[in-house]
Amino acid sequence: MEGQKRGKVNLASRRPFVTLLKSQLKETFFPDDPFRHFSGQPAARRFWSTISYFVPILQWMPKYSLAFFGCDFFAGVTIASLAIPQGISYAKLAQIPPIIGLYSSSVPPLVYAMFGSSNNMAVGPVAAASLLMAAIIQEIVSPEEEPERYVYTIITAAFFTGLLQLTLGIFRLGIIVDFLARSTITGFMGGTAMIIILQQLKGFLGLKHFTNKTDVISVLHAIIQHRSECKWQSAVLGIGLMIFLLFARQLKKKIPKLFWVNAVAPLVVVIVGGVIAYLVDGETHGIPIVGDLKRGLNPITISNLQFKSPYVSVAMKAGIITGFIALAEGVAVGRSLALLKNEQIDGNKEMIAFGLMNIAGSFTSCYLTTGPFSKSAVNYHAGCKTPMSNAVMAVCMMLVLLFLAPLFKYTPLVALAVIIIVAMIGVIELHELRHLFKVDKFDFCLCMAALLGVLFINMKTGLVISFLLSIIRALLHVARPVTYKLGNLPGTDLYRDIDQYPDSKTISGILILQLGSPIYFANASYLRERIARWVEAEENRIKETRSQDLQYVIFDMSGVSAIDNSGIAMMLEAHKMLQKKGIKVALTNPSLKVVEKFTAANFIEAVGKEWFFISINDAVAGCHFAMQEANETGV
Amino acid sequence: MEGQKRGKVNLASRRPFVTLLKSQLKETFFPDDPFRHFSGQPAARRFWSTISYFVPILQWMPKYSLAFFGCDFFAGVTIASLAIPQGISYAKLAQIPPIIGLYSSSVPPLVYAMFGSSNNMAVGPVAAASLLMAAIIQEIVSPEEEPERYVYTIITAAFFTGLLQLTLGIFRLGIIVDFLARSTITGFMGGTAMIIILQQLKGFLGLKHFTNKTDVISVLHAIIQHRSECKWQSAVLGIGLMIFLLFARQLKKKIPKLFWVNAVAPLVVVIVGGVIAYLVDGETHGIPIVGDLKRGLNPITISNLQFKSPYVSVAMKAGIITGFIALAEGVAVGRSLALLKNEQIDGNKEMIAFGLMNIAGSFTSCYLTTGPFSKSAVNYHAGCKTPMSNAVMAVCMMLVLLFLAPLFKYTPLVALAVIIIVAMIGVIELHELRHLFKVDKFDFCLCMAALLGVLFINMKTGLVISFLLSIIRALLHVARPVTYKLGNLPGTDLYRDIDQYPDSKTISGILILQLGSPIYFANASYLRERIARWVEAEENRIKETRSQDLQYVIFDMSGVSAIDNSGIAMMLEAHKMLQKKGIKVALTNPSLKVVEKFTAANFIEAVGKEWFFISINDAVAGCHFAMQEANETGV
Repeated sequence: MEGQKRGKVNLASRRPFVTLLKSQLKETFFPDDPFRHFSGQPAARRFWSTISYFVPILQWMPKYSLAFFGCDFFAGVTIASLAIPQGISYAKLAQIPPIIGLYSSSVPPLVYAMFGSSNNMAVGPVAAASLLMAAIIQEIVSPEEEPERYVYTIITAAFFTGLLQLTLGIFRLGIIVDFLARSTITGFMGGTAMIIILQQLKGFLGLKHFTNKTDVISVLHAIIQHRSECKWQSAVLGIGLMIFLLFARQLKKKIPKLFWVNAVAPLVVVIVGGVIAYLVDGETHGIPIVGDLKRGLNPITISNLQFKSPYVSVAMKAGIITGFIALAEGVAVGRSLALLKNEQIDGNKEMIAFGLMNIAGSFTSCYLTTGPFSKSAVNYHAGCKTPMSNAVMAVCMMLVLLFLAPLFKYTPLVALAVIIIVAMIGVIELHELRHLFKVDKFDFCLCMAALLGVLFINMKTGLVISFLLSIIRALLHVARPVTYKLGNLPGTDLYRDIDQYPDSKTISGILILQLGSPIYFANASYLRERIARWVEAEENRIKETRSQDLQYVIFDMSGVSAIDNSGIAMMLEAHKMLQKKGIKVALTNPSLKVVEKFTAANFIEAVGKEWFFISINDAVAGCHFAMQEANETGV
Repeated sequence: MEGQKRGKVNLASRRPFVTLLKSQLKETFFPDDPFRHFSGQPAARRFWSTISYFVPILQWMPKYSLAFFGCDFFAGVTIASLAIPQGISYAKLAQIPPIIGLYSSSVPPLVYAMFGSSNNMAVGPVAAASLLMAAIIQEIVSPEEEPERYVYTIITAAFFTGLLQLTLGIFRLGIIVDFLARSTITGFMGGTAMIIILQQLKGFLGLKHFTNKTDVISVLHAIIQHRSECKWQSAVLGIGLMIFLLFARQLKKKIPKLFWVNAVAPLVVVIVGGVIAYLVDGETHGIPIVGDLKRGLNPITISNLQFKSPYVSVAMKAGIITGFIALAEGVAVGRSLALLKNEQIDGNKEMIAFGLMNIAGSFTSCYLTTGPFSKSAVNYHAGCKTPMSNAVMAVCMMLVLLFLAPLFKYTPLVALAVIIIVAMIGVIELHELRHLFKVDKFDFCLCMAALLGVLFINMKTGLVISFLLSIIRALLHVARPVTYKLGNLPGTDLYRDIDQYPDSKTISGILILQLGSPIYFANASYLRERIARWVEAEENRIKETRSQDLQYVIFDMSGVSAIDNSGIAMMLEAHKMLQKKGIKVALTNPSLKVVEKFTAANFIEAVGKEWFFISINDAVAGCHFAMQEANETGV
């Protein structure tokens, strides 16, 4: 047949099931193929490679130089200066003693320095997860009535977070985090930031009583209800400190080299605020302060973890939900910073590091930590070279805990509120919302669903709504694949979508359809109906224009990456349906996977081997040849 | 540029958002475009078309002929003769009075005859849904202790089934049923059939006591426990009747024209069994019988529907779960029979018909009905032409209810058991299991999960497990799209997967990757890593073979049917990553939808308009041209 002069579809090969399964499992769970460098190495070397794969410090330590340490030292000290105010503030947000926030910036960074693979990540507590965790734990334990139990339950939640992250990492289930859409996270983070800012009005106005709920309505209601408690001294100090912080932020934007001013600004705010509170005796003059901070390193809390019902179940719930959020944030931060240096990071390995640091943290009085964007960006700009900067930060924090902690007693609550507010303003990505609206309306809706859900219902609901919407959307993508009618681009042997290329010409007697991918149970019946509709529309067009009857339908399978049993059944039904109308089916360019399934299901024999073509051009030539033959034999 | 001589990618057009949304909503909810015939008709005609679209009887009645009625009459009488034993048997399976089974074959078929669009469907109760419904309702109401309330709760469940089906149909959510994979249904039906067969041992052996649980272990345990109640008379009669039924079944298989022998065989079994039971006074001689059946048409039950807690919630639960099963079965049966006659049926319209018939049924003492395969196949073979055969069946049933019902009092329970057993043997599709195992191991696993879940846990759990597995599988399909490295087929300008076509040649300095589809949040980070790995592998290959450095990466976008915000961000990151390595990116043949998103996100400017090509061949030519130019300018 003339049409096949240029090569045939490879219909012979069918890989054995085990090979297929192996390759599929590999693509699903080891998409980054972490051990690819090891093959062909001697056994001892391979053993060392494997060990150092899991403990990255063994990879970079041997090559570590003094010059590197200089950079890491500077970055470490810088992020430590940020870690102090952030630690105290976020601990306040989780309604636990501020010292826990400082503890959480000592042990976890040390663990991360050993197991972490990102050279830019700086580890510490995060605002959104702190608030979310507090909101979930408060359903069972009240921080006012049982303060000790509350703290230990929060720490237990961190233990479960670590366990989850470690498990996901070891079983290479990073794929789960892939299903948290970026737009969902943007919306969730934006909504959470707004809520956090609103909540800071408590500290800003010096209120004593407040609500535990997180939605906008409850928070505004609480502020109005307790407006008589407002203290002007607190607000005045707050406005002053805020102006300073915003100025530092603008300075960084204008002169990127002065990023360190912005980085140490929160510490300056804490110190200046503390000095003022001390001088004016703030506690008795309308400026509430943090209160006593004990000197000393992290106490061991292994035996205090709450493994009894109902505390264990709420800790588990809080740990798992915040664990996913923390992971998504941490992995995203790691990836985007790695990209700037053109490095690759391994999401699953990062999860193992996060898991180990949270488990170790929960044994030593730390609560949930991850790689927050603000701190990691400072670390990056400060020129960090390796995870060593985290170790430097950890040592700084230990020194602070040993010698300076009591000094932070005078930190005014309003200073913490101001630090959080300014940090959260940076998280609300209005430009991202605008971009989403412009590029993808559906992504924008997902984002707004998360944002509004967080603002008006609660954080958990907002996240869940948006997550479910993105799953449904992913499923819709597979349930309604696109199909195109193709036409010949004049003067070429190319066939393209006639909607996209209005110049392209249909070929009389032949309908060419490009099928979307993959074909399986969720879209098989849709595709069957869609194909029937294409054929009907073509027949009507032919009737109207009185052109040649439809004799051939060519399915371009190039884009069909996979097919399942229902999909093959559908193809067979379409073939039969067309056959009854006297229309012949031809297929072009099926992929290896699809050919294998076709072979197993005897589909190739049903259609006829000679009707598989390697390109549309060949298929059209084949159809023309068959038409000619039919005419010559006089049928 | 020489490479673009053959046409350019159409980068200009961007359709307005409203057009896009409209077309997407249409493809999602009106994939069959039911109103396509109406356009261009005058208003009055269009109004009539719309009305008759929703009430199909208005479409076929005007064209109805006496010849058609002859066919429908024969088919209707044949399915009525099947409906009597099936109705009594399946009502027994749901543990409700047998008369309800007869009621359920009178009103619903009449409603279906008006609103149904399938010319082959025969309506009535089904075995699997009957058992499942009974199992769910028995969690709250016991059929022994509160028989009346139990019956009314079952009928209320049918009301909710109808409401669900009507809602799904009106809002065109037939898409939900698409997500019940065929393999899941095969497994569920197979497992249910096995369980039902086991349960019939109660009637077969004439046991009085039994278990309400449905799993294999419980049922076998109950039989052993109550083995002393076994009645040999019952078993002997049962074996005799079963041999007759199996003989009739074989006859149909051998001589398809004698299908009606098989169709009336159950009625013969009921009559013969009844006569024997009457003659030997079965009730006192070890052959339990059905017992009194009241004469008269369906009593009205609107006021008996259970809308009080906790009955309403269990009825709703049972109604919704069985509703999906019934829908999936009904729509599948309708579709496969329509295919044999080369007709199309509209799934959403069928749902409306099912919904209306179940709601009307629940008002008139009927329980859940759908289009069972056995009855519909008989209807088809009997030569039905329109839904009129259902109306004929309904009239026959009404005559039976008015005059003959009391005669069925003597029907032995063992006859019902035998009818159910033989029907269920036909449902267990061992050949389908074998086929699945051969074609698609994963489909086979889904099927076995449903089957084993039903057998060893319970029906609901089996179904849910398998459903969740198929959703996860659908998501995995989108999370891990395939990517291929393409090579040139010698002597052609075609580029194909080098794994599939080992002859194909790579082009020095250029890596050609075909991306799977669609690209979005669930697979963006996977694809980024996969692309990085392809590039790395190519660079290593180049190092080993000391060939020309990698200068260009061509992404073939032909198969990418859609892209979202995260997908574009990924493409941009890949572009930047390659740029840093000094590698230029080219894209070929992006589809209309993708181009629109690229334009909105300014991706086209980022890559450069001149790097979009209409075919891989053009892209390669373009890269060669640029390489030459670079050489000539001496870089």
